[in-house]
Amino acid sequence: MKKSAKIKISDLAHVGRRTPAGEWFRCYWLVVGTTKELRDIPVAVKILGEELVLFRDLKGEIGLVGLHCPHRGSSLEYGDIEEQGIRCAYHAWLFDVTGNCLEQPGESKDSQFHKKVKHLSYPVRELGGLIFAYMGADKQDPPPLPKYSPLVGTGGQRYVESIRSYDYSWFNFIENGVDPVHFSVLHRSDPSDGTWRSWFFNRHEIPYFDAVEKPYGVKVISRKPGPTPDTEYVDEKSVALPSIIQIGDLEFTHFHKPASALAEGTHIEHIMFVTPNDDNHFMLFTADYYTGPDPDFFPKLAATRPPPPTEEKKEYDHRKYMPFRGSVRHEDIVTQGTQGAIDQRDEHLAASDRGVILLRKSILNAMKAAQEGGLPQGGIPKERAEQVVKIDSFTGIRAKGVF
Amino acid sequence: MKKSAKIKISDLAHVGRRTPAGEWFRCYWLVVGTTKELRDIPVAVKILGEELVLFRDLKGEIGLVGLHCPHRGSSLEYGDIEEQGIRCAYHAWLFDVTGNCLEQPGESKDSQFHKKVKHLSYPVRELGGLIFAYMGADKQDPPPLPKYSPLVGTGGQRYVESIRSYDYSWFNFIENGVDPVHFSVLHRSDPSDGTWRSWFFNRHEIPYFDAVEKPYGVKVISRKPGPTPDTEYVDEKSVALPSIIQIGDLEFTHFHKPASALAEGTHIEHIMFVTPNDDNHFMLFTADYYTGPDPDFFPKLAATRPPPPTEEKKEYDHRKYMPFRGSVRHEDIVTQGTQGAIDQRDEHLAASDRGVILLRKSILNAMKAAQEGGLPQGGIPKERAEQVVKIDSFTGIRAKGVF
Amino acid sequence: MKKSAKIKISDLAHVGRRTPAGEWFRCYWLVVGTTKELRDIPVAVKILGEELVLFRDLKGEIGLVGLHCPHRGSSLEYGDIEEQGIRCAYHAWLFDVTGNCLEQPGESKDSQFHKKVKHLSYPVRELGGLIFAYMGADKQDPPPLPKYSPLVGTGGQRYVESIRSYDYSWFNFIENGVDPVHFSVLHRSDPSDGTWRSWFFNRHEIPYFDAVEKPYGVKVISRKPGPTPDTEYVDEKSVALPSIIQIGDLEFTHFHKPASALAEGTHIEHIMFVTPNDDNHFMLFTADYYTGPDPDFFPKLAATRPPPPTEEKKEYDHRKYMPFRGSVRHEDIVTQGTQGAIDQRDEHLAASDRGVILLRKSILNAMKAAQEGGLPQGGIPKERAEQVVKIDSFTGIRAKGVF
Repeated sequence: MKKSAKIKISDLAHVGRRTPAGEWFRCYWLVVGTTKELRDIPVAVKILGEELVLFRDLKGEIGLVGLHCPHRGSSLEYGDIEEQGIRCAYHAWLFDVTGNCLEQPGESKDSQFHKKVKHLSYPVRELGGLIFAYMGADKQDPPPLPKYSPLVGTGGQRYVESIRSYDYSWFNFIENGVDPVHFSVLHRSDPSDGTWRSWFFNRHEIPYFDAVEKPYGVKVISRKPGPTPDTEYVDEKSVALPSIIQIGDLEFTHFHKPASALAEGTHIEHIMFVTPNDDNHFMLFTADYYTGPDPDFFPKLAATRPPPPTEEKKEYDHRKYMPFRGSVRHEDIVTQGTQGAIDQRDEHLAASDRGVILLRKSILNAMKAAQEGGLPQGGIPKERAEQVVKIDSFTGIRAKGVF
Repeated sequence: MKKSAKIKISDLAHVGRRTPAGEWFRCYWLVVGTTKELRDIPVAVKILGEELVLFRDLKGEIGLVGLHCPHRGSSLEYGDIEEQGIRCAYHAWLFDVTGNCLEQPGESKDSQFHKKVKHLSYPVRELGGLIFAYMGADKQDPPPLPKYSPLVGTGGQRYVESIRSYDYSWFNFIENGVDPVHFSVLHRSDPSDGTWRSWFFNRHEIPYFDAVEKPYGVKVISRKPGPTPDTEYVDEKSVALPSIIQIGDLEFTHFHKPASALAEGTHIEHIMFVTPNDDNHFMLFTADYYTGPDPDFFPKLAATRPPPPTEEKKEYDHRKYMPFRGSVRHEDIVTQGTQGAIDQRDEHLAASDRGVILLRKSILNAMKAAQEGGLPQGGIPKERAEQVVKIDSFTGIRAKGVF
Repeated sequence: MKKSAKIKISDLAHVGRRTPAGEWFRCYWLVVGTTKELRDIPVAVKILGEELVLFRDLKGEIGLVGLHCPHRGSSLEYGDIEEQGIRCAYHAWLFDVTGNCLEQPGESKDSQFHKKVKHLSYPVRELGGLIFAYMGADKQDPPPLPKYSPLVGTGGQRYVESIRSYDYSWFNFIENGVDPVHFSVLHRSDPSDGTWRSWFFNRHEIPYFDAVEKPYGVKVISRKPGPTPDTEYVDEKSVALPSIIQIGDLEFTHFHKPASALAEGTHIEHIMFVTPNDDNHFMLFTADYYTGPDPDFFPKLAATRPPPPTEEKKEYDHRKYMPFRGSVRHEDIVTQGTQGAIDQRDEHLAASDRGVILLRKSILNAMKAAQEGGLPQGGIPKERAEQVVKIDSFTGIRAKGVF
């Protein structure tokens, strides 16, 4: 990448090495797996276009190393996990989690060749049930892993979802997070259902929203007048750089309650980490942290979860994603999955895209900072390594005019 | 496209914008759907490489507009159809059939931004159960939609088939229409079955044919001596520009009759409109117009339709298209679908390709006319807008020597 | 291909025309089918990137001709096989096995055009149940077809397997043949099962091996001390150019016997011919020649064949090739199929790759000889046309120190 290359918003479509967005992503710790899903078999993962394998050795240490054995290229996905690391199925070369080659059984007993082979590896850390990796330049001295509050909180209950995978550009998902208008349209519900959602997110009275810059990224705040003159109903969401969305509700359970229930607040931080596999695929890692009074909050959640969309599909309806209405997740996939990547769209941004516009500006600045070798927004300087990172999100009633 | 670019026959393989064949096709009205199949859901269609969506609003007007919403690109295929047009699922922007943006509910009530957004749209017309669109330069003042006789005839019976889709180059299908020799070979039948077909289209006595230029394109006439010295049995087919085949029988029902039945004639115009989706896919729209005496002609047809090929497939036969013999449509797919596009073939044209050669010459001239801004063959000048377009086709006995 | 182009090992990844490896392969007779599988239907085959069709006419002669009819390109795979050759389904042009066009029924009776059409064809020969073709420059005077001993032997029993197809680079399979170390690792068995295999191919005591040049290519010999001081247990395999592997056991049946059984020898030549379809696919043709005492050797073999791997797959195991352990063929596919082609690997060859290194050197030399118009290693000069080609392979006990 030429340092002088002018960074453009269309660069966000590309995440490989030596692309502006690819190098920018490599400044951050990215989620690459979950504690509960990394078990006793190696898992091939593609991260930012790089083919890697994630595994936990029998000592419990996690490794993220190149997928292909440096010997003659066979996939370590089929290797054996041992006390010391992972052993290739082809010739039994053994690698530890930092890429050191410990054994080469086919060589003579006194061979030192294994010491000359250093396999690609990236530093890995676990936090709050998620596995983070740092793929940047300074692997020996990586920046601090941010202590995102839902991952480090104590006293509450934490739940990590299974990994979800998507087949479109990561940015389509992320910018949706600072676009509250779509909630009143795409995720519409029966206006007569008596829920807070159908009143607040009403297409005919779309709530006004503010988009504001925050140290971590961008926050959008939608508001409607509250039950008393000095209060308002608020739905507040954030995008934190590089690719994190946080909302103040969990699977929109509070959306289904009557407005009166909102006074209690939701006691939820619902944080979503997006990690691009490549230009056209990403993984989504979701963690919830609940600090409310219900000791069985997560077990009870399954029962309140809306069923998948059951709308009947007409026999002459050949559309790929039907049915989709009635499931927030399906609705998002239909719109985000058909947008095309940011470098392929003919867009007409409106005033209601102010959240999107602000986020793009923040990311462009962050990419520029990364290109210049600085610490981009959302990264943590070493002197603040221990500080908890708080991302704003809220659904409920609060005093008017908070930003 | 450089105006001076020399047009070659291999150009027919490419139909996108700024290709010679693509610009030529955009001089004509092309069939993009059928009345009976365009119901209450939007239908994504790719025409000449452009991603579009076809829909009928609740007023009954048909729109053919860009598939991707001009806002941030989501597919209008998942939009809601309303009285005034189609509304995007993502942010509820509303477009009418001419591409005007009527509403943007996320904007402030006094916003005029919607007036600045004009979405891609093409003029659309219905005729005889088919939906035509004009994708050329002069959308405000398009050329006349030709009044093809099978679509405008009155007093007879008309039948429009369901749309068929094919995954090879449109031209392979079209040039087959002026290649009568293949009928005696590919569509062979049992020589002892007593039908007119097995006598007329006999590989060992292939009928002589003439290929002649017509105002609309090219006609081929195959002949064998008739029952009296001054008559002959004739099978006459035409290709009209840009991509229409017309034959004088319907699903070859008369082929299965004894020769004596041919005296009655077939009373059929079987017209097939080919519309390229892209270089390697096309849609086929078929209409029949019957003017004979049988009031139940089309209902009865189903019973006479030959069953799909049931030839047993040997267990060691791994060929993709097996079985195919016994179905004219399957036989055509096997040969046309394996030819490769015209720009990928190593051909050796023979004297019996005179129909193909004449058609290619006509199309090259028409592409040249289009490139020079003139009216290409098969297009209708405004002063003849009301004239019925008659394409020749005939199967039966008639006076000798008609051209 | 520029004659002066420097040949590199990465060139082995490409086999099309005008590539160094493609032109080198075209110096040899290559297996393209088996006698038992070429029956009464034409078979489309891609060889070295060329689309061809293999058929046997009703006289019994085999043809390998271009897949696409030279007339207008339809696939001859759907043609009719006749006494004189193959007849295209589209217009009935008839071709004999040497590509002569014998008939064009659509042309006038006195047309001589068919004599001007010469279709692509390659010389074909049958030997020992295999069908070989020569795709090189001198089709009129091809080099001798080598008389590989397992194909020409008399008095023994010969068995030809059904064709196997693989979807990775041919070279990954071939170089595995001179890499005996992988046997002790990848094809490991239960060390306590009492078989010769678990003792000889033991990861903790990998046998020493020599790699030696032979007139036909490269041989590797693995050894362990024998039952008497002047004997040794030996497993000897060869790769013959261009792409043949021969081993001295059949489906590793002797591997499963106790060491004591090895004294009898295996009486087997197991020869495998690899033919690239294109850069990423190859076919494998396997013949066995048995000269031992058992008159029912091959019928009995099925019963001794290990079952496919039945290892239970964990519900969270999403790896493509699972299960694979316990089947030598599956194990090979997992490692070879994930290596990536030779031009895409980041390799670190070790001392134990000496067989691979020697083979690569031999092939580079052979490609250079081919490029210079000479007879590459593995080709047979005309004066030795009648000589049997003996490729070394052995599993058993023999005198110490044989090379």
